[in-house]
Parts: sequence; structure tokens; C-alpha cells
Amino acid sequence: MTKIRGHLVRISMEMKGNNFKSKKPWGGRFKQETDRRVESFTSSLAYDRRLYPYDLAGSVAHARMLARQGIVSPGEAEEICGGLQALGEELESGNFRFDESDEDIHMAIEKALIARIGKTGEKLHTGRSRNDQVALDLRLYLREQTDLILRLVAALKKRLAATAKKEIEVVMPGYTHLQKAQPVLLAHYLLAFWEMFDRDEERLRDCRKRIDVMPLGSAALAGTSLPLDREYAAELLQFPRISRNSMDAVSDRDFVAEFIFAASLLMAHMSRFCEDLILWSSREFGYVEISDAFTTGSSIMPQKKNPDVAELIRGKTGRIYGNLIAILTVLKGLPMTYNRDLQEDKEPLFDTVDTVIAAVTILTEMIDRIVYLRPRMEAEAELGFTTATDLAEYLVEKGVPFREAHGIVGRIVAYCLDARKELAMITLKELRGFHSVFARDVLPRLKAASSVSMKTTSGGTAPERVAERIREIEQGE
Amino acid sequence: MTKIRGHLVRISMEMKGNNFKSKKPWGGRFKQETDRRVESFTSSLAYDRRLYPYDLAGSVAHARMLARQGIVSPGEAEEICGGLQALGEELESGNFRFDESDEDIHMAIEKALIARIGKTGEKLHTGRSRNDQVALDLRLYLREQTDLILRLVAALKKRLAATAKKEIEVVMPGYTHLQKAQPVLLAHYLLAFWEMFDRDEERLRDCRKRIDVMPLGSAALAGTSLPLDREYAAELLQFPRISRNSMDAVSDRDFVAEFIFAASLLMAHMSRFCEDLILWSSREFGYVEISDAFTTGSSIMPQKKNPDVAELIRGKTGRIYGNLIAILTVLKGLPMTYNRDLQEDKEPLFDTVDTVIAAVTILTEMIDRIVYLRPRMEAEAELGFTTATDLAEYLVEKGVPFREAHGIVGRIVAYCLDARKELAMITLKELRGFHSVFARDVLPRLKAASSVSMKTTSGGTAPERVAERIREIEQGE
Amino acid sequence: MTKIRGHLVRISMEMKGNNFKSKKPWGGRFKQETDRRVESFTSSLAYDRRLYPYDLAGSVAHARMLARQGIVSPGEAEEICGGLQALGEELESGNFRFDESDEDIHMAIEKALIARIGKTGEKLHTGRSRNDQVALDLRLYLREQTDLILRLVAALKKRLAATAKKEIEVVMPGYTHLQKAQPVLLAHYLLAFWEMFDRDEERLRDCRKRIDVMPLGSAALAGTSLPLDREYAAELLQFPRISRNSMDAVSDRDFVAEFIFAASLLMAHMSRFCEDLILWSSREFGYVEISDAFTTGSSIMPQKKNPDVAELIRGKTGRIYGNLIAILTVLKGLPMTYNRDLQEDKEPLFDTVDTVIAAVTILTEMIDRIVYLRPRMEAEAELGFTTATDLAEYLVEKGVPFREAHGIVGRIVAYCLDARKELAMITLKELRGFHSVFARDVLPRLKAASSVSMKTTSGGTAPERVAERIREIEQGE
Amino acid sequence: MTKIRGHLVRISMEMKGNNFKSKKPWGGRFKQETDRRVESFTSSLAYDRRLYPYDLAGSVAHARMLARQGIVSPGEAEEICGGLQALGEELESGNFRFDESDEDIHMAIEKALIARIGKTGEKLHTGRSRNDQVALDLRLYLREQTDLILRLVAALKKRLAATAKKEIEVVMPGYTHLQKAQPVLLAHYLLAFWEMFDRDEERLRDCRKRIDVMPLGSAALAGTSLPLDREYAAELLQFPRISRNSMDAVSDRDFVAEFIFAASLLMAHMSRFCEDLILWSSREFGYVEISDAFTTGSSIMPQKKNPDVAELIRGKTGRIYGNLIAILTVLKGLPMTYNRDLQEDKEPLFDTVDTVIAAVTILTEMIDRIVYLRPRMEAEAELGFTTATDLAEYLVEKGVPFREAHGIVGRIVAYCLDARKELAMITLKELRGFHSVFARDVLPRLKAASSVSMKTTSGGTAPERVAERIREIEQGE
Repeated sequence: MTKIRGHLVRISMEMKGNNFKSKKPWGGRFKQETDRRVESFTSSLAYDRRLYPYDLAGSVAHARMLARQGIVSPGEAEEICGGLQALGEELESGNFRFDESDEDIHMAIEKALIARIGKTGEKLHTGRSRNDQVALDLRLYLREQTDLILRLVAALKKRLAATAKKEIEVVMPGYTHLQKAQPVLLAHYLLAFWEMFDRDEERLRDCRKRIDVMPLGSAALAGTSLPLDREYAAELLQFPRISRNSMDAVSDRDFVAEFIFAASLLMAHMSRFCEDLILWSSREFGYVEISDAFTTGSSIMPQKKNPDVAELIRGKTGRIYGNLIAILTVLKGLPMTYNRDLQEDKEPLFDTVDTVIAAVTILTEMIDRIVYLRPRMEAEAELGFTTATDLAEYLVEKGVPFREAHGIVGRIVAYCLDARKELAMITLKELRGFHSVFARDVLPRLKAASSVSMKTTSGGTAPERVAERIREIEQGE
Repeated sequence: MTKIRGHLVRISMEMKGNNFKSKKPWGGRFKQETDRRVESFTSSLAYDRRLYPYDLAGSVAHARMLARQGIVSPGEAEEICGGLQALGEELESGNFRFDESDEDIHMAIEKALIARIGKTGEKLHTGRSRNDQVALDLRLYLREQTDLILRLVAALKKRLAATAKKEIEVVMPGYTHLQKAQPVLLAHYLLAFWEMFDRDEERLRDCRKRIDVMPLGSAALAGTSLPLDREYAAELLQFPRISRNSMDAVSDRDFVAEFIFAASLLMAHMSRFCEDLILWSSREFGYVEISDAFTTGSSIMPQKKNPDVAELIRGKTGRIYGNLIAILTVLKGLPMTYNRDLQEDKEPLFDTVDTVIAAVTILTEMIDRIVYLRPRMEAEAELGFTTATDLAEYLVEKGVPFREAHGIVGRIVAYCLDARKELAMITLKELRGFHSVFARDVLPRLKAASSVSMKTTSGGTAPERVAERIREIEQGE
Repeated sequence: MTKIRGHLVRISMEMKGNNFKSKKPWGGRFKQETDRRVESFTSSLAYDRRLYPYDLAGSVAHARMLARQGIVSPGEAEEICGGLQALGEELESGNFRFDESDEDIHMAIEKALIARIGKTGEKLHTGRSRNDQVALDLRLYLREQTDLILRLVAALKKRLAATAKKEIEVVMPGYTHLQKAQPVLLAHYLLAFWEMFDRDEERLRDCRKRIDVMPLGSAALAGTSLPLDREYAAELLQFPRISRNSMDAVSDRDFVAEFIFAASLLMAHMSRFCEDLILWSSREFGYVEISDAFTTGSSIMPQKKNPDVAELIRGKTGRIYGNLIAILTVLKGLPMTYNRDLQEDKEPLFDTVDTVIAAVTILTEMIDRIVYLRPRMEAEAELGFTTATDLAEYLVEKGVPFREAHGIVGRIVAYCLDARKELAMITLKELRGFHSVFARDVLPRLKAASSVSMKTTSGGTAPERVAERIREIEQGE
Repeated sequence: MTKIRGHLVRISMEMKGNNFKSKKPWGGRFKQETDRRVESFTSSLAYDRRLYPYDLAGSVAHARMLARQGIVSPGEAEEICGGLQALGEELESGNFRFDESDEDIHMAIEKALIARIGKTGEKLHTGRSRNDQVALDLRLYLREQTDLILRLVAALKKRLAATAKKEIEVVMPGYTHLQKAQPVLLAHYLLAFWEMFDRDEERLRDCRKRIDVMPLGSAALAGTSLPLDREYAAELLQFPRISRNSMDAVSDRDFVAEFIFAASLLMAHMSRFCEDLILWSSREFGYVEISDAFTTGSSIMPQKKNPDVAELIRGKTGRIYGNLIAILTVLKGLPMTYNRDLQEDKEPLFDTVDTVIAAVTILTEMIDRIVYLRPRMEAEAELGFTTATDLAEYLVEKGVPFREAHGIVGRIVAYCLDARKELAMITLKELRGFHSVFARDVLPRLKAASSVSMKTTSGGTAPERVAERIREIEQGE
């Protein structure tokens, strides 16, 4: 038995020497090379290479911390950081040569570092695992992208508020069930979207708090026996908080799911705006004209001018919902802690980030390229009995219980429909046929502008309320 | 022409008198009764009746506000509130008679109020629309349910922390890729879930801020010309904020989607815990025994004792994801403002609330009914080379670069596999065959307990770290 | 040791006698009663009771087969079937008393049978497990519901074809990107939906083949040692095929997912039709008027008449998509074979069946209650340069390459827009300013009716093509 | 007025001459160039270029058909086809130069054709729209990919059957609820997956019928006035059917959704297989050893050998579910006919095709690299009371009603648990303490092999049944 053991030691020693030598940095215990197809199936390099700036930043912080704790010498840390910087320049300039067999950006960089600076490079991964490293990189990346998106959403809100201010006088029909409901200000309509995007911003900010937590130092899942100073690394990387449980830290992707959810609602809001733009661009509504520069034509129909940008934003909502389901499906029922399934977090996240950035940017630009066709809007605001509710409220003011008033006005509308006339065409005499409290002062109430101006409840569409809200917005409230 | 007009007035007057009289409160302009099948297809009464306490509370606040503003008299408000209270008692006791043709709980209550107190009841809906009313009810409901769920999640966290404290000494194998990775404390494992549920709590709190906004006074979409005092109504209903744009307020369901998303992650976390419980209940793992009271048997196999509760929680994650997709699909591309599609917000929301309440409650109970089979866990923690990383870190401490150390230990593992021995069985002599720095002090490092005790990085699994964390938790941090 | 064993035998014997006696049919090995909350959490009785007719039918077939194989006596089978029939009558009439602690409809019925006929009832479950029983019931249920839905879809298609026939002469604008594109027949539009629903029917039929497979006889997962005749049971239950692998049979829910997917596309198609109906009901389009009986009003705005039915069908698409995600989430990563997660198959399925039946039925009815406002449609078909492509094709006929022709007509349109005129208003002289091949015969080509009549390619909108298609449809092709 | 008109004609003529000249093939009516950001936002070239072989094939068929119908001359068709072939070679070799401002592969190719062969190239798009062109390309692409996937699934099934045949003697524990249930053959387990993949194949075949329909000739949405011969084009492109309604044809993406759904279930099945492989690879189960070449290691833990391939396949299920939601979301509520949202069909489809091809291929390969650890499996099959049901069935054979037999065996199991013994260790005397009908012939029934061999019901796990099934499979049934 000892004989065999001795034999095995020998074999293993030989393997150490020259026999099979895995090319993988983790290949010590393996006796067979990874299958090519497996390499390509499991590799994430094609998409995670975009994480390189974050990976380098994380490694620099890690190396400095290792030096401060005496785990590597100051000189070694210098060497490592210098090497990383040089690699950063190569990556930046596009001169970095990736190896097909690299599994991911993390391994590619570590390998290149060792190739460049030798033995010292082998010390970088001390007290670190890819598990905490990839969690760190993803958080650094997403924190930066979230900040960018926050700025873009702020710009979109600003554009909406500026347009509302400019168009403050335009009256248009408000809709429920896509049926004309009551006259509103176009500005009020635009500010409704301001509110939605404001909530999106709030949600992204809330999410950002949970992104902004440093996992480094969790190692594979248990922490490490090496005397790391996690607080110091966090400081270098400007994290206000560090994760408090290593097992949680390496398998937590809540922040990815939460970000994609926040993006889903943001897309949903843009899709609603675009839906209306598409409707309003139709000849039938005719409320807006989108600039030629923001529309496209047809390969066969020479007259077409299509609101493609708005349609695409609406359509792209689907892919973000899909990305949300993708990450949630991955997370469901996953045993603790890290499992390779989690590699599937990146593509949905990256696609979401890219899509949201593009969509918010182009929508903000497009808003400036829209001409609101005021005469048409205002004409339509008078039609379709949009002031019927005002008539009912008039009766209420005169003491008629609301439910009864509603019934009376309903019959007036029925009467008008039969007579093929609009409310504005009705005479006082006719009105008095329905109820004797109607007096001369009712007639101005039937105009859209008057209707709008009387909706002075807080949050209502009266011009003074809307102007007030714009001022609040301008003053950052 | 005037002749025809006069004729039409007459007809309409007659309609007012005795001809067609819609039974619907909004039926004034209609000439045909709603089709029965349409009534049943569009009715939400079967599920929205659970909103009645919130509908009543909202109506009482609305009536009081109307009185304060002089829109109804104090006496009328008294009468209305008295009527509503009486209806509340009927509803509470189950004696309220619903009419199949009622569209929803709101109309059912208004109709019953008018039936009970007469004409004055017709004044309740003054300055209000179902659009803002339903938004109000939903927010009141969800605010209350969220508070309940917050309490339940807090109880679940407390139970986990208490269990962690009780089991603080138990060492078990930690897993990545479902392969043994490193020894950890069972308490550390349990606290990882504490962190997840803590984030869930945070997310629910963030969501609650956005639920807690009062939409009443937005009327149909534009606000109203009646002099409502929205701030006062908000005060009565204990809302800290009122909505700032009426068009947004009546069509905003972000809070529904956000709540369901927060619930989705909460379910995902529970599904992960349950996945592990199911694995650990298997004879092969054998780490836990769930009490008979929390398992069920088989109709055919007499020996079976199945972890059904855990399986069902895991399975129910699917329905919550489904509910999330349901509401997001409804919101996508919806034109402004309210559309009837939004009625489809309720069932997914109610189902989510019910499911989450049931799942969190039963999981909290179940945790107390689990026996952790410590001897098995601890025996397994020694097996499977769980301390290989400690060996590598030992080499690092002795100055071997980490990547080289990793390679050496990899070969030691390969050697052990061939020799069919565990790490704990290896001799110093054998180790020294792989590297000369190995000394006597390496051997204790190969024990699971030692491995765990050395993971003293912040957030690591060392008993002192875990105990510290439990204290922080107990002290509410 | 033998002493202890003897003691244990005694204890167990006593348990058999009078000690703890589980109320559960599977409780032999259990020493503790199921927790009440667990009972209620795991029970499916609230929703699976609708399966009772299928459960009874399956049990009758099973009992007959057992008798035929000599596993029970003919008399026993008689007794069992008689008992089941009696229970069926009780269930039908609503007199059946369910016990809260029954786990599901299967256990409830078996228990009631034993209560009614005694010992013999205990033989029914011979060679059967709930695993194959529930799979059987679900397949029987879904086969029947699918047949019903197939009939309903056929009726919807028939209604569309009949309407197309009736409205064969109506010309309307066809749209792409919600911009007017080319004139089409309303009938052609309606038949486009016929095609979609036809594919839905095809898909449901394909799915039905995979529903129509009998799992009974798979027992828990392995088959059974009892000499069952599965083919005979299949014959009794009119299944053309039996499942070929017992492990697959008890955990296969593909047919549930496939059905919900087929329903998802069916809903998507209805949502598209409803979207157009909503658009067309708007005052701005004004193409249709939906009957009062199929619309509803507003609680505040007396003039409103909303296309609620169409909106709800559109909105309900979300819940079906949600149901699809629910079942797919359950299936993902489920270990073999049956796991309790699969209980979560029923509610999404039942909800899908109910929703689809209601939606298809009401849509079919609604189609008859729509008035197509032909004058408006036809007037609009002439406007918006809908015949620009015809103009380009005219040039092609005269030898101008298509891409050049497209450019010329594009400029003609730009000219008209500047001049604020429609194509029909252009003179030959003006046209000839753009290209000399334009001759007198071009002018008729600019009329919508002419445009439509020339689209004679197979599948095109020319009246003769459309009429031909209607004939094909009527003749069942 | 005529003066102004004349002026406008002049301006337009000038525009034709030298003024603004859109670079877009559809730019005739446009007065402003497309915004750069819009170009990049709306372009699909980055991903739809993979459609080029199908676009070329479709164009060749279209050109030939145009010639046959006399719409272009034979010489022109020759020229076009020659040009297309040359472009095909360029594209194949990677020498084709794409222009950033090209919207999509269709426009890029048409433009390049015109650049290459001049004027004649402008005739290719005669009687065609991008709407029917893109639908055609997508169908040609997906038909080919579906055929490839069908072959891959067939290969996977073959591999499973071959492995089943090879391992026909291996007995293992079958599981329900991840608890040991009954002994089964490993071959039976593998064939359960054969059945699943067989249904996937069936579903893909059904879907293929609906892919295999030619839309070309539908033009933009209405058909065309040019005398196309759609049947001839279909023949050239080997389509057995042509679409029957032009409006449906250009906006139908059912086949995309259906394909992604079929892929979703296929992934779900693979995820279940991988889940079990992951479980079985754990040290705790220890049923399989996956080859080094199909596993990977850890960056920090030298002992790790992780089943990454299986985890990734399981994880990738999420992205396919996400793709399904993406396309379904796009389709919901889309007005007729083509809308730009539909451009979002491609990326989810391409990603699904690529993922499925990779996953099926690698799984098929991996199956050959798995060693089934028979001794462990067989030892485990004897443990955990796996033959308790056999014991109950023994009692049934002796005339004990099943439900009573179940209870008796339940108590025997409880007794064994207390006595810490397995069923195989029980004595006849002990058994007879529970029921007097137990006789000597019961003891062999307690062995796993005997249990398996008695499950001779059709579809059961008895070796003769399984062998029979393998023969059926080999003979293509």
C-alpha cells in the first residue's frame, strides 16, 4: 500500500515536472485538457471584455491593499500596478491580444500580467477568488452606468419640462379609454411623463444604494485566512459599504435584477409616450409632426414617413422585459452559493444598459424635433362633448346631487348625438329643457379653455397649477 | 330643422321620464342595456370586493372633506358617513347582498348607499371619479399589506438570527457549483439568507414610499372645478404626500409592478433556501430532518416523507414571476391615461400578496421544525478536500506566490484522488514531496474547524465574526 | 438488541392499535399530525375540485380494468363504480361535503368512497399513485376544454368570414406603422385575422395530440408489479395512445405549457384585433361604432362610451403571458421525477382556459355588434397618398426601373404636401412635370377602388381574390 | 393659386435636380437627411447581416419570377442574378464593405447591386416590399436552422438510447420529491428524457409546417398590381405553401414565437437533465463522474472540479424564456399590419437558435463523457425503503385492500426507522408481527433488482420492457 502511495507521489511529482500540464491557471488537479467545444461554450470573454476597466481598477485596489497589509511587498505592488496600467493602455488602444482559450476577462488579464511581469504577477490573486472579483467588477460597472443613466433621465425630464413651459398655452383633448374625456393642457400631459420619469430616477437611486456595496474580500465563499483590510479596499474604490456575509456576497445578483426591473418600468413609460406619439402622428389624430430627420420611409410606398424611432422604443420594451425574466429565471431555486448559471447575468444586464442608454438619449433628442399642431389639437378639444363633466359640475354647484347631475348630462349628450350637434352648439333653451337651473352663465363653461382653467385642484390641469408645477421643477422643488 | 330639434328634445325628455332607463349609474347617454355577458366579462366584483374596507375609508374621508369645503353640508356628510358605516358592518358580517350586475365594489357600495340613505347618497361621488377612487383604494390596501409583509419578513429574519445563534458551533461544508468548497458555519449560511431578506425589506420599504401617495382629487384625469382640499383628505387618510399630476395619478400602476417585483426577489430568495432544504433533506445529503408536521406522505409509497412545503414555496416563485409579467405586459404601450386594461392589475397583485404572506409565514414556522444533523454535517465538512484553499494560503504565508501555490495544491489533490485518501489523511512527508516549505504547523490547518476559525476577514465565516454579526443584528445594528 | 427490537415491534403494534393514528391515507409512517397551516398551505382542494368529473371517470375506468384483470372481483368493481356514481351525483348537485383537511380532490373522493362503501373502497387505489392519477385527470380535463375552445375558435372564424362576406364592398385605408399605406378591402382586413385564428386552431390541434396520451398505469414513477392492462383503460377513456415511459409520464407537463403558449398567441391575435377596434372607435378614426350593449360608461364623465370589452381582452393577454412564465418557471431545473412544485400547474392552466373561453366567446358576439362606418372609411381611403405605390407601379409598367419610379413618386408626394393637395387632386400636367411617360390613363389609377381592384396577386386585396378566398373558406377549402 | 402651384412644381423639379437629395432609396419625399443617431438607433445591420444568404436566394427567385412574367427581360434577370452571385461571393469571403448608414442587410445588398450593375439593379425591388422580403428571409433562415436543430435533437436522442442500451443492467434509486422512491433502471431514466426530446422534435416539426409558407408577393400589405406568379417563386424556393392573405403575411411572426416556445421546452428538458447531473456529480450523491474535459476548476480552490457545462445549460434556459417574453411582448396589441416594433423579432430569434444549437451539441457530447458509478447507484438503490411499495403490493396480491396494505407498510417503515434498519434487514418474524399473510416468498421482493424486474406494466421499468422500448426506438418504431 505504501508502495503504491510512493508510486503515486512519484507520478504526481513527474506531472509537476513535465508530463501533463494544464494551460489553465486552475488546472493543477486535472489530468485532461478542457475540450475545445467546452472552452467555447463556457467562455464569457466575447461579452465580459467590456468589464476590463473595472477589473483593472479592482485589481489595483486589491494589490495596494495587499501591500498595505504586508501580504505583498510595496515593490511587488508597484510592479503589479504598473503592469496593470500597461495592460490598460493596451486594452484601451485595442492592441491587447485575447486568447480564444481564455475563459473570461479576469483570467485573460491575470495571464497577461504574469506574462508581462513574471512571478510577481502570480501574487495578485492572493486572498481573492473570481467569485468576489466578478461581483466587484459588475458592481463597479453598473454603478457607473447607473450614474450615466441617471444623468440621461434627468436630461429627459428637463427637456419635457422645457417643452411644457414652451407649450403652456396649448389646450388639447385628454383621453381615457382612447375616447375623448376632458380638455387638458398639452403641458400637463407632458408633465405627467415628467412624474413617471421622476419615479424612475428615484427607483434607480434606491437601486444604486444596493449596487454600491463592496464584495471584495469574500474570496470563494467563506472569506480568507489572509489578513485583508476590506474597509481600505472599499475606500480606494469609493464604496460606502462592504458586504457583511461572504456567502451572500458571492452569489448575490439582486442588484442586477433590481436594475433591470427599474429599466423595465422606464421602458414601459417611454413605450407609453411613444404609443401616443405614434397615434398622434397618424393622419387621423394629426396632433404632431415628427421631423424628417427622426422618421424613415418605405422601400415600396413613396409617400410613407414612419415614426420608426417611436416604434422601436416601444418594441424594445419587450427585450428588457425578456432580460428581466432571464435573470429571475436564473436566480430561482439556485442552491448556495455561486453556481455557473450566474454567468448568465451579464448579457441581459449589458443589453439592458445599452438599450436604455440609446432609448433615453434618442427620445430626448426626438422631443425637440416634434412640432405640436396646436390648431388641430385645440379644435379637437372642443369636440366630442369634452366639457360634459363641467356641465355636471355646474349642476352640482347649483345644488343638484352629483349622481343626478350625471344622469341629466348623459341625456343631454344623447340628445346632441341624435341631433348631430356638439355641446358648444346647444342653446340655453335646449339646456333648460333638461333642468331649470341652467342659466346664461353655463354657456362659457362649455368651452375647452374655460374647462381647463377651472381645474384648479392641486395636481389639476389649470394653467396656474401647471405653471406653478413647472416653477417647482425648475427650482428643483 | 328646429322642428326636428324640438322633436328630439321631446324624445329625450320622455326618455328621462319613463322610456329606457339604464340601470347603470353612468347610463344617461345609453339607449341600450349592457349585454349580460358583457356585464359578467367586465365585472371585477368577484375579486375587488376585498377592497371594501379601503373603499369605505376613502369615501368617509372624501365626504368629510366635501363638508369642510362646503360642497356638501355637515348634515349630509354625517348622513353619508353613517350610511357607509352601516354598510361596513353589513360587509364585515357577510350580510351585504351583492348584485350580479354591479360592475365593481365601488359601484356596489355607492348604489347600496343611495338605496339606504336616498338622495344624499347621490352627492358622495361629487368631484370624484372611479379612476382616482380605485387608485386610492389600491394604495390604501397595498400600504397595509406591505406593512404586514414587512412585519413577517422581520419575523423571518429574527428566526434565522435566533437559529444561527443556537447553532453557532455547527461546522458544515460550504458549496459552490454544488461541489464542496470550504467549511463554513451553519450560522454563517443562515445569516447569508438574513442578508437577502434584509435587502428584501429595504426594497419593500423603498416601494412603500411610492405607494404612500394620495391620488384622490385627480378626478377622471384633469382634476376638477370643485374646490376640493386634497391635503386635508390626505391628512385624514394619513398620506404624507399627494400626487402632483392628475393625468399621471389615474394611470400610474408603477407601485403595483414595483411591489410584485420586490415580492419576486423575496420569493427567489425563499426558493433558494427551500432548494437547499430539499437537497439537505435527501438521504444523500442527510443534513436536516424536517418535522413530520411539516412534511407529507405518498398515496402509494408507504415510506415517503416529502418536503412538500419547501417544494411548494419553490414552485410558487413561478406564479409571482408570472404576475410580474402580467402587470408589465398590461402597462406596455398603454396610451394615456386610464384604460380598462388596468383592471387587470388587481388579480396579479392580490395573488402576489396572498402568496407572499402564506409563504413567509410558513417558512418562518418551518425553520423551527428543522433538526440540523450536526454529526453528519461535521463529518462531511472534513471530506472532499474542503481545506485545499487553506493549504494554498499556508504556502502564500510562506512566500509562495498564490498562483503557484494553487498549482501545487492542485497536484496534491490529484495525488490524493489517485491514492483514494482525504487531505486529513496525508502525511507531512507526502506534503513535503510537493514543496519543502511544508512544516509540522500545516497539519492542523487541514481540519475543518481550524479552516473556519481562520476566516476572520470581515464578513468571513470565523466564529468570532459570525458571533459579532449576530450581536449587531440583535442590537438592530 | 433483540430485546429492543422486540420492544419496538410492540410499540409499533400498539400504534397500529390505538396510539397515534394519522388521519391521512398515507400516514402510516408518521408520528405527528400534519400542522394545520401546512395542510392549508399545501392543499389544492380550493381549485382542483373542478377536476372531479375527470377524477371520477378515471377511477371508474381504473376499477373496471382492475376487475377485468382479476385484481378486484367483478362485484367489488360494481360496488366501487356505484359508489363513485353516487358521489358524482352529490358533487354535481353541490351536496358533497368537503373536509378542510383533505389535501386535494383525489383524496377527498377516495375518502368519501371508503366512507360510503367501506373496505372495498380501499381497493380502488391499487396499482395507482396520485402521480399518474393527477396527470390523467389533467389530461382528461384539458382534452375536453381544448375541444370546446376549438369549437369557439371555429365559430369566431366563421363570424369573421361571414362579416367579410357581408362587407365585401367596403374599401378602407390599410396601415403600416399606423400611417396610411394602401387602400384595402375591410373584408381583406377581417380575413387576415381569419388566418391568424386558423393558425391558432392548427396549433391547438397539434397540442391536442400531445394531450391525448394516457399516463395511468405509471403508478408513482416506475410502473407496478400488478398486472394492469393499460391499453384497456385507455380504450375505456378513449385515448388513442398510452405513455411509453413511466418516469416521464408522471412528471410531464409539456402539454400544459404548450396549451398555455397556444393560448398566448391566440390572445395576442385577439389583442391586435381589439387594439384596432379601440383605435377605430376613437372619434379621430371613427371607423366603427360598437353597440351600446358592448360598451360601458364613466362614473364621472356623462358623455363617455368606452370600448371596455376590447380593452379588457387586450389587457387579459398579460395574464396569459404571465401564466406561461409561471409554468415554464416551475419546470426549469426540476429534478426527476414528480416534485410538489408541479402542483402549481393547475391554477395557471385553469385561469388560462377560463380566460380564453370568455374572451373568444365575447369577441365573437361583439363582432356582430359593430357597425362599420363605410362612408368614413371610404373617404379616408382616398386621402393620405394611399395610391402612391400604384403610381410607382404605373411607371414600372411604362418601363421605369422601380427604384427610380419610387424616387419620382416620392417627389410628387413632397410637391403635393407643399401644395396641400391630395394625389387625387393632381393634374396630368403636373404629373408630366415629373416624368413624361404619364398619360391620361394614370388618373383613374389614383382612386382607392381602382387601386384595390388591381391587387390581383394571389393573397392580394382585389375583390375577386377576396371573394375567392371567402368561397374557399366556406367550402372548408 | 396656380402661380404658387407652379412655383412648387419648380421647386420640386429643382429638388429632383440638384438640391436636397436623400441618400436613402426611399428618400424621395423627404427634405431632411436622417439624423445620424437615428440611423444607428434604427439600423439592424449589425445583426441581420447573417440573413444575407437567404436574402440573396430570395432575390434570385424573385428576379427569375419577374423575368418569367415578363416584368423584366430575361437579360435583365441574368444581369441581376449574376450581380447577386458576385455579391454573395464577396459576402462569403468577408470582402463585402458595409456602409454604416445602411439600414439593414436588404438595403445594403440592393444598394451594392445597383452600384455594381447599374440601372438594371433598380428593377429588382419591383413588386416587392421590405415587408414581404424580410418575412421571406426570416422564414428561409429559420426553416434551415430548424432542420439543423432537428438533426441535432435526433442525435441527442440516439445518444441517449445508445447509452441506455449500454447501461441496461444498472439499477438505481428513482426519486420523487428528491426522496428515494422506488428502484428503477438507469436506462429507464435515460429513456424518460428520450421521450421528452421526442416531443420536442414533434413540436419543432409541427412548427416547421408553419414556418414553411412563402410570404413573397404580399408586397407592403395589399399585394401588387404587377402580374407576379407567387406559386412559381414558391417552387423555386421549395415552399409547399404560399400565404393566403397579404395583410397577415407581412405582420405574422407567430412562427418566431412558436419556434422560441419549442426551444423553451427543449431547454427546460435539458435543464432538468443537467440539474440531475449536477446533483449526481456532487460527492453526496456520487452517481456520476464527468470527464475532466467537460468540467472546469476554480481560480482559488485547487480541489474543485465543477460541472460548469451542465450549470450553464441550466442557466441558459433563462435567456430563452426571456426571448420568448420579448417576442410575445412585441406582438401584444400591435395594430395592423407591419410596425417597426417587429424588427425586434430578430435578436431574440437568433440568440435562441445559437443557444439551442450550442446547448444540444455540447450536451450530446457530454453524455459520452459521463461515467455512471454503478456500484454506488446499486448500493443506494437498496437503501431508504425503496421497496416499500413492493411490500404493499405483495399484501394486495394476498388480498389485503391497498389502502390497508399501505398503512401496514407505513408502520413497518416507522418500525425500521426506530430500529435503525433497512427493509432488507427485516426478518420474516418481524414482518409477521405486522400481518400474518407475510410468508417466506416476501423476502426476495425486498431487493431492488427484484423490484425493478416486476414492474412489467407497459411503460414500466422492468428490464424486458426497457429493452423492448430500446428495440422499438432503434427500429424507428
